[in-house]
Amino acid sequence: MTRKILMHVGPETIDYDVLLGGIKGDVGFTSKEFVDAMSFSLKFLRKLMGVSESYQPFIIPGGGTSAMESVTSLLRKGDKVLVVSNGVFGNRWIDIFSRYPVNVKALKAKAGYYVKPEEIEEEVKKDHYTMVTMTHVETSTGVREPIAEVAKRIRDYVDLIVVDGVASVGGEEVRAEDWKVDVFLTASQKAIGTPPGAGLLVLSENATKRLGEDNIAGYYLNLKNWLGVMQSMEKGKASNFSTLPVHLVLMIKRAFELIETEGIENRIRRHEIVSSAIRKGIEALGLEIVAKTPEAYSNTVTGVMLKKVNPNDVLSMSLTEGIEFAPGVHPDLAGKYFRIGHMGWVNINDVISAIAVIERVLSKLGEPINFGEGVKAVQEYLINGISISSSNIAP
Amino acid sequence: MTRKILMHVGPETIDYDVLLGGIKGDVGFTSKEFVDAMSFSLKFLRKLMGVSESYQPFIIPGGGTSAMESVTSLLRKGDKVLVVSNGVFGNRWIDIFSRYPVNVKALKAKAGYYVKPEEIEEEVKKDHYTMVTMTHVETSTGVREPIAEVAKRIRDYVDLIVVDGVASVGGEEVRAEDWKVDVFLTASQKAIGTPPGAGLLVLSENATKRLGEDNIAGYYLNLKNWLGVMQSMEKGKASNFSTLPVHLVLMIKRAFELIETEGIENRIRRHEIVSSAIRKGIEALGLEIVAKTPEAYSNTVTGVMLKKVNPNDVLSMSLTEGIEFAPGVHPDLAGKYFRIGHMGWVNINDVISAIAVIERVLSKLGEPINFGEGVKAVQEYLINGISISSSNIAP
Amino acid sequence: MTRKILMHVGPETIDYDVLLGGIKGDVGFTSKEFVDAMSFSLKFLRKLMGVSESYQPFIIPGGGTSAMESVTSLLRKGDKVLVVSNGVFGNRWIDIFSRYPVNVKALKAKAGYYVKPEEIEEEVKKDHYTMVTMTHVETSTGVREPIAEVAKRIRDYVDLIVVDGVASVGGEEVRAEDWKVDVFLTASQKAIGTPPGAGLLVLSENATKRLGEDNIAGYYLNLKNWLGVMQSMEKGKASNFSTLPVHLVLMIKRAFELIETEGIENRIRRHEIVSSAIRKGIEALGLEIVAKTPEAYSNTVTGVMLKKVNPNDVLSMSLTEGIEFAPGVHPDLAGKYFRIGHMGWVNINDVISAIAVIERVLSKLGEPINFGEGVKAVQEYLINGISISSSNIAP
Amino acid sequence: MTRKILMHVGPETIDYDVLLGGIKGDVGFTSKEFVDAMSFSLKFLRKLMGVSESYQPFIIPGGGTSAMESVTSLLRKGDKVLVVSNGVFGNRWIDIFSRYPVNVKALKAKAGYYVKPEEIEEEVKKDHYTMVTMTHVETSTGVREPIAEVAKRIRDYVDLIVVDGVASVGGEEVRAEDWKVDVFLTASQKAIGTPPGAGLLVLSENATKRLGEDNIAGYYLNLKNWLGVMQSMEKGKASNFSTLPVHLVLMIKRAFELIETEGIENRIRRHEIVSSAIRKGIEALGLEIVAKTPEAYSNTVTGVMLKKVNPNDVLSMSLTEGIEFAPGVHPDLAGKYFRIGHMGWVNINDVISAIAVIERVLSKLGEPINFGEGVKAVQEYLINGISISSSNIAP
Repeated sequence: MTRKILMHVGPETIDYDVLLGGIKGDVGFTSKEFVDAMSFSLKFLRKLMGVSESYQPFIIPGGGTSAMESVTSLLRKGDKVLVVSNGVFGNRWIDIFSRYPVNVKALKAKAGYYVKPEEIEEEVKKDHYTMVTMTHVETSTGVREPIAEVAKRIRDYVDLIVVDGVASVGGEEVRAEDWKVDVFLTASQKAIGTPPGAGLLVLSENATKRLGEDNIAGYYLNLKNWLGVMQSMEKGKASNFSTLPVHLVLMIKRAFELIETEGIENRIRRHEIVSSAIRKGIEALGLEIVAKTPEAYSNTVTGVMLKKVNPNDVLSMSLTEGIEFAPGVHPDLAGKYFRIGHMGWVNINDVISAIAVIERVLSKLGEPINFGEGVKAVQEYLINGISISSSNIAP
Repeated sequence: MTRKILMHVGPETIDYDVLLGGIKGDVGFTSKEFVDAMSFSLKFLRKLMGVSESYQPFIIPGGGTSAMESVTSLLRKGDKVLVVSNGVFGNRWIDIFSRYPVNVKALKAKAGYYVKPEEIEEEVKKDHYTMVTMTHVETSTGVREPIAEVAKRIRDYVDLIVVDGVASVGGEEVRAEDWKVDVFLTASQKAIGTPPGAGLLVLSENATKRLGEDNIAGYYLNLKNWLGVMQSMEKGKASNFSTLPVHLVLMIKRAFELIETEGIENRIRRHEIVSSAIRKGIEALGLEIVAKTPEAYSNTVTGVMLKKVNPNDVLSMSLTEGIEFAPGVHPDLAGKYFRIGHMGWVNINDVISAIAVIERVLSKLGEPINFGEGVKAVQEYLINGISISSSNIAP
Repeated sequence: MTRKILMHVGPETIDYDVLLGGIKGDVGFTSKEFVDAMSFSLKFLRKLMGVSESYQPFIIPGGGTSAMESVTSLLRKGDKVLVVSNGVFGNRWIDIFSRYPVNVKALKAKAGYYVKPEEIEEEVKKDHYTMVTMTHVETSTGVREPIAEVAKRIRDYVDLIVVDGVASVGGEEVRAEDWKVDVFLTASQKAIGTPPGAGLLVLSENATKRLGEDNIAGYYLNLKNWLGVMQSMEKGKASNFSTLPVHLVLMIKRAFELIETEGIENRIRRHEIVSSAIRKGIEALGLEIVAKTPEAYSNTVTGVMLKKVNPNDVLSMSLTEGIEFAPGVHPDLAGKYFRIGHMGWVNINDVISAIAVIERVLSKLGEPINFGEGVKAVQEYLINGISISSSNIAP
Repeated sequence: MTRKILMHVGPETIDYDVLLGGIKGDVGFTSKEFVDAMSFSLKFLRKLMGVSESYQPFIIPGGGTSAMESVTSLLRKGDKVLVVSNGVFGNRWIDIFSRYPVNVKALKAKAGYYVKPEEIEEEVKKDHYTMVTMTHVETSTGVREPIAEVAKRIRDYVDLIVVDGVASVGGEEVRAEDWKVDVFLTASQKAIGTPPGAGLLVLSENATKRLGEDNIAGYYLNLKNWLGVMQSMEKGKASNFSTLPVHLVLMIKRAFELIETEGIENRIRRHEIVSSAIRKGIEALGLEIVAKTPEAYSNTVTGVMLKKVNPNDVLSMSLTEGIEFAPGVHPDLAGKYFRIGHMGWVNINDVISAIAVIERVLSKLGEPINFGEGVKAVQEYLINGISISSSNIAP
């Protein structure tokens, strides 16, 4: 079965222009074509993150988790770290730091909620933390943390603010510098819309200065080892520490060119429209969104609560209908929800298809829903909620 | 703008597996890989056409029109030909034959109708025709001629029955041998689902025997010149008359493999479901189909009559919404309709998207329609009209 | 076995950038992307042919033979045509015209030679010919006709000068307008370096004017039917007669962009160097070139005479060594030679590999050659015959 | 400039079949197509490493360095590690371990040499080491360590024998189980012939058992976290720890299929022939190989000592001639050599081209060489040194 629509949580459906951008049989890690792609991509990454040249961009092998772990390059033995966790990927920070000689404290939200800014403010006023980590969009639930507000409240009390933007960058508004975030990181396979295989980060000047010899990071994920490579590459000069994913970087470059053509703001607006449309459809069917409050809704991932039927049945029957959704992974909601990823190259036709499939599948499986109301609500939103003239949102 | 759904009349959206099948930088016209692809494709073409080994398959450069013109290889000076025309592509037979020393008579149907079998029977009883040509699905209107019935009625009165299956083979049931059709032809870019560039034909034993030196065809499209090449290639031996579209043939082979995996019957069933769903949606919107009677409906092309708005506006606004439809081209209905192509790799998600876009676009443009009823009707058809378990119709 | 070097006579090794340029799943025959590619390609074709806007460019389905047959669009019943034939593809003109109501006379050269300009001049002075056809490079022998000189001698005596540049355009100097040639035609799979599937022509103003209703061409290859389409497409407006090979045209556009980047002159110079190097190698081995005189040498195809061994053994053993050459096809030299194609994206590394393989294979098979001298001669030519600084000839 | 031959040290020229294997727009990390590719690849990895099912295979994100660092998963605080280093990548083990709480001792060879097996034996008899690490082929010099012999000598004295096969697996004979090696690791971009982005390892039963909670590894490169995923995937069941490079794994699967078709033994034999041919050519030119003794020669990388000219000039001029070689990176030989990578899909035509380019470039630059002798020696080796019938070594 082909021509599937992949609405998992990353990789999702990838534009073939992006994939074909990496099909080069003769590009090595010091080849001009690769160095140029790195240079372009590092520079564009700043735009995507909303930062000036004072921030240092990195593209390193791996993905979201390796990018997260690489911030240990900013820590020293005994440092205190506050983890703000809204779910599985928030908790991952705890698991990572547990392997290192730092003191970790975590503030956790219930599934579907985010830790309140005031709660975080309160905590950082009580104790001095070297680093606070947050998750912009928690992939396990689709809940968005109000980063700007939190950062504003805690900025004066902590040394480093680190944001996991794995499920946000490319689909949510990100203004890392305005928000005074020190490290904003993401992965290639999410809203950027390329295959998995790279982590992307920007570090503030202050963060970059901390990349000392005495940091607690290991070797491969130690940003200190990558710093010179990134600086050299950005200037168009080949450099090597450990071999970068050459072909993936060529794809990232192509994706960034397409993003530039679309316009970053237009892209975020597209994600907003798409996610709004999905929620309209889900709600009209009579189902609940995992994220409990509108402020918590994200542009990129939507969790859908089920009343009666087994999410695995929904996933496998939807796959038969040509769409692959993602299972729910938050342990507190085990077996009660599934997720729709809507990142990267997703468009309104995908939304219509997705809601239509969900409608048919749930009806068939016996879930009590308002059959017919889902797609109808999407259509009404698209025609009335937004003007067609501004809805040129096929990527 | 990418990730468009192409619902034009061929090429339509092509599966990337098919396209990538032709990406070979080192395959020449005598290379084993090409000869094997030809051999496989010629053999599979028989299955697609529903014929035994007594029929001779051909894959020649060009497309539908060149395949049509190549049947002049079966004619001699002064032969009488009866053209059964249901529209633009039926009339094309007349234009072709007008360049050759044969006597042509045409039976023409009004736009939206097909020439009645009894009318054709009557004509062939009145006069002896060497050849009768018909169009299985008339691309300009989406009208289907009942080939089996016509052939049955006229078989004893004419020497050669020729069917243009350009818009049918791969999407409609074709049983050329059972129906006693002598030549069934198609083009690569329609329901077979590959790029344009080749015409494909099967000739009955009787037709093949007529490929004499005294035929009236020119050189390049003279099937006599291609016959030995096809016979040799099928046996796995390189042969050349004029260079075949090597890379396209590699794609055709890949498409045929995918068709084999899907199953020819399943593929036709998928086209039936898809076309039924589209008509349900269009009718529920309150619009008329160009084909006037259910027997005339085709699995592959649907013309949609508009009451008020300009079809060009529908096309350009739909394109903005991510779907490319085709303009109407029948002169008698100029400016009154547009066409939806649903051939090849089309699936139900494409249908849902198409009807949804049409709903929104027509509503926005001011066409009087039942907004919301289109997609709803499709959904109801998909859930009640066909069972989901048998609707595994994503190609 | 992959990573073969294809040195057949077209298609040859194709650059993957070119192939990937056609991998688009959603481009139809009226899509902007296709129309733009046609417009660009038609315009660039003029540059490649060395003509101004007074010439009308055509890109039509098929290949070399269909492009040749399409010149019947310029003829009327009873016209006299002089065919200048240096081999198999020269003779093809005779076979084509034999299907049409024209009077054909042919001047033929022996294998390895070309018809002398003075001989042609003499003939056209004796009788009035509407059309003279010539073959720039005869693919069957690699012999080049001195088109400029012939055209100069006959221009005043004939109405139309037609040149088959199938094996020359893109690899030989072509200045159709300066030379006062009326029709210069080629095919996509030769020195242009794209897959087979299209014929490309330019017609002088005088030739274009002759595309009347009373021409003797059939329908599909009648340039009169394509004229409006080409004119419309060049202006960026979709138009249709019969479906063009959309994806191939996208590849042609990509190839033309690469040719523009390389520079047409540089490209021809590269073909000169490559062909000189091949001949140096072959001659140093003690073998003869099929083309008998230096003026007859072409930039694109070299026939190699064998003294003793069977060419089929050379081909199959060379294939085992990773290079696919072409068999000889001139009947007068049957079994005595094989051909090396060196067109399109060929570079000096291919040459070195080819001569080295020929050296080893012939030695192994027992052909009396100067083992070791072939590659050595190529190396000496490359280092002394041309300066390295100007030999930047990897395409 | 395209159609370059990439003879760097990884990635090198990659077969397009391999690259195209990863062009899938709709495969997610739990999609069946990916899980199947992982399952196949993990199983095939055992064959490539020469191990039975008692070994546990891993495919993890990153590359050679991350695979190396992941063996910290087998260590506990205070463990003693002996590093056997023949150059830059041998020293990398020291840099890695220096970030962890273990005691490291290193035995180092001079550039061009390898540490003698008896020296290693002597050391492990003096002190108890938990782990000994070796580099099968040192990429910086092309020197091969005799792993089998070393392992035999030290097996009884150490707990874990770890071999970095980054520049060997796929091109050198590897029989990890027979040799009683506990960990054999490699990277995707070297002799396996896929893009960079993954590290591949096999762990003996004994090694796998040591993956305890108390190991000193971090989080992302902790094989303990990947173990369940690999076991599940091998059984065909989706599982996730952190997102794997989905598309690269699809390419690895394709490469492994091609390797299976070629045959692992044939592939290694091809690398032997290719590397022998290169050395014959280099030596005939009068140049020295970096590896000082024949036992130290590797199948995959050859360092070439220069007497006079600047290696950077050689690299840039060679690039102009269509081949990209690699710079020398061993600090003790800085500015004195360059490297030829001959891994993955390299064939004899590449060798001929490479030696011919080196001959011309060095001659032009003024290096004292025996011009003409290089390619000649390769040709003589290929025709006499190996029989053509067995030299079917185009990959």
